[in-house]
Amino acid sequence: MTTTPGIGFEVQASDGLARAGELRLERGTVHTPCFMPVGTLGSVKGLTPNDVAGAGARIILANAYHLALRPGSEVLRSAGGLHRFMGWAGPLLTDSGGFQVFSLARINSVDDEGVSFRSHLDGGSRKITPEISMEIQSAIGGDIWMAFDQCPPGEASRRVAREAVDRSLAWLSRCRNRWRTLAAESSSWLWPVVQGASFSDLRRESLERTLEAGDWTGIGIGGLSVGEPREVTLGMLDVLAEGLPADRPRYLMGVGYPDDMVEAVRRGVDMFDCVAATRNGRTGTAFTRRGHINIKGARFADDQGPVDLDCDCECCTNWSRAYLRHLFVAREMLGPRLLSLHNIRFLVRLMENVRAAIQSGRFDDWAREWRSHRRRPG
Amino acid sequence: MTTTPGIGFEVQASDGLARAGELRLERGTVHTPCFMPVGTLGSVKGLTPNDVAGAGARIILANAYHLALRPGSEVLRSAGGLHRFMGWAGPLLTDSGGFQVFSLARINSVDDEGVSFRSHLDGGSRKITPEISMEIQSAIGGDIWMAFDQCPPGEASRRVAREAVDRSLAWLSRCRNRWRTLAAESSSWLWPVVQGASFSDLRRESLERTLEAGDWTGIGIGGLSVGEPREVTLGMLDVLAEGLPADRPRYLMGVGYPDDMVEAVRRGVDMFDCVAATRNGRTGTAFTRRGHINIKGARFADDQGPVDLDCDCECCTNWSRAYLRHLFVAREMLGPRLLSLHNIRFLVRLMENVRAAIQSGRFDDWAREWRSHRRRPG
Repeated sequence: MTTTPGIGFEVQASDGLARAGELRLERGTVHTPCFMPVGTLGSVKGLTPNDVAGAGARIILANAYHLALRPGSEVLRSAGGLHRFMGWAGPLLTDSGGFQVFSLARINSVDDEGVSFRSHLDGGSRKITPEISMEIQSAIGGDIWMAFDQCPPGEASRRVAREAVDRSLAWLSRCRNRWRTLAAESSSWLWPVVQGASFSDLRRESLERTLEAGDWTGIGIGGLSVGEPREVTLGMLDVLAEGLPADRPRYLMGVGYPDDMVEAVRRGVDMFDCVAATRNGRTGTAFTRRGHINIKGARFADDQGPVDLDCDCECCTNWSRAYLRHLFVAREMLGPRLLSLHNIRFLVRLMENVRAAIQSGRFDDWAREWRSHRRRPG
Repeated sequence: MTTTPGIGFEVQASDGLARAGELRLERGTVHTPCFMPVGTLGSVKGLTPNDVAGAGARIILANAYHLALRPGSEVLRSAGGLHRFMGWAGPLLTDSGGFQVFSLARINSVDDEGVSFRSHLDGGSRKITPEISMEIQSAIGGDIWMAFDQCPPGEASRRVAREAVDRSLAWLSRCRNRWRTLAAESSSWLWPVVQGASFSDLRRESLERTLEAGDWTGIGIGGLSVGEPREVTLGMLDVLAEGLPADRPRYLMGVGYPDDMVEAVRRGVDMFDCVAATRNGRTGTAFTRRGHINIKGARFADDQGPVDLDCDCECCTNWSRAYLRHLFVAREMLGPRLLSLHNIRFLVRLMENVRAAIQSGRFDDWAREWRSHRRRPG
């Protein structure tokens, strides 16, 4: 919360609504648009921080909900925070736990105080309030903290969406109060999360009231890509575009499939996170320039080419599709590791290419070319 | 089988029966005593060749039995052999499948022709004969091939042990015939395997008849550490010590726990392989200077020290016991990967230290010091 000279966000180029920016944090600079690999439990599954940095990622996301359950705040505090615990020296953004309690846990009650739920691990009763979320994020010690929000499904009713907007705003000010105390000595930021499900007016209202509530260093867009049709997701971004402050980074939470990212950048989004890259990688699905492929397919048994011809990652520069297929068929751990790394590199490089296109003022051409190579999953 | 100048084995120093040597192969030089990590299915589980080389290993073992089932000889041939398929440029030694058919498969019949069995994967009927083993090892394209042998359990009866000795010798000459044809263009070696279970006279006889059968470039010692008491294993090495040719490398198959390796080096063994390093690593057991530890233990929850204080591996120089414990408790893939790497580095470094002690003529002192730090598993 202390102000350090040079820390901040700068839009360096824009093309339509798409922006190329620089997010300067104490622990490192992140070029945007960017993809943040997800280190749910303090590791990007199967990969070392060195692997992740080698794939070009400059910021990692960690989950307050998961880390609170394992290893717990006490262990994180005594390790000196998550950076030291997991050996990642770069910027960390922490999710508040809001999304996880509403999607993973068995909820007992949601009221103005917070959320009571049963842990998805042992069924034990737990509670997260805005204050508790800040306490957990303080133990993690990330560089960007997210406000604890109520996150309804994408096709929530108007009543539920309205409740989530109001409650998230009420919780936001409580988050800020606790964050101000906890983060007094750090340079961390707190970002709010805009809700409103699939209702344009509620989305607009959520954004307006959020901006009235404070001068935030960045804005999270939550509750999208949670079950609603893709057109609705993108429509909500259109609705928000005009109201978002131009000089602040916009982070679209939980979105991380290649085509969705390109379309969101077109609508002004700067940051993304998603488990899709690693989850797909673990189960044998590789992102490629032409669409995704299931590497376990018999047609790859003798394919000596790389997973993705255009890719410069460790996996694609060293091994063949035939080898990767063999690893997956034989259930060798190396397969999930290599394909996770590939998928992360794919998204990081996608954002690098998008950024270059924006900087040279040819984003639309680039996106048209990009789309022309995409085909349905093979 | 072609002779290349400079290729061969040289004993550079000895101390008692312990030897420090250099095994010069076309694809690289291996200092002995050495530990060979096991890449059963064409990957050292969870690790890249770069990781394995980074841990100091210079030769990897692969399994003909497993690779014949998956991905199969055809795939290996069209990839240009296992070196290219898995991306390991250094020396490879291939196990013949003998040990695996007798330990993993459901055997239908064993006769002079070979072994008929059901695959441990799909129950399908398969057959390995000496000739077939050579064909598989040819498809793999390793640098050292092992003869197909009959491998009885450690406490086999005299009748079974006698049969295994005779049959392994008969199969040896068939292996050599086929190897001579298949390897005519390569610089690969074929090594015989001495059997005899726990019978001193049969061990002596197996060695003598093996040596009469040819001028081998190295000798495998098989059928040990397969259920018999440790004293018996070491006793058999004592029995063999006087008969083994001094100028040939001795490879003790399937042995790879730290204390056993030290005692085998004392009895003149030069090479080891074992899945223990990686199998233990995958399940949370770490080799340390003082004995092995189960990293999942609650006592490590807040332990900020490295897995092994004396270790220079990637795991120990970057992460704490608390972090490794967390990874295992949370079932994060990174845990098995890091602890496998540590255990391999531990055994490689153990052999480096043993070698240095032999070279300076203080092996006994070194071994006494080593033993003084060992305690029962904690």
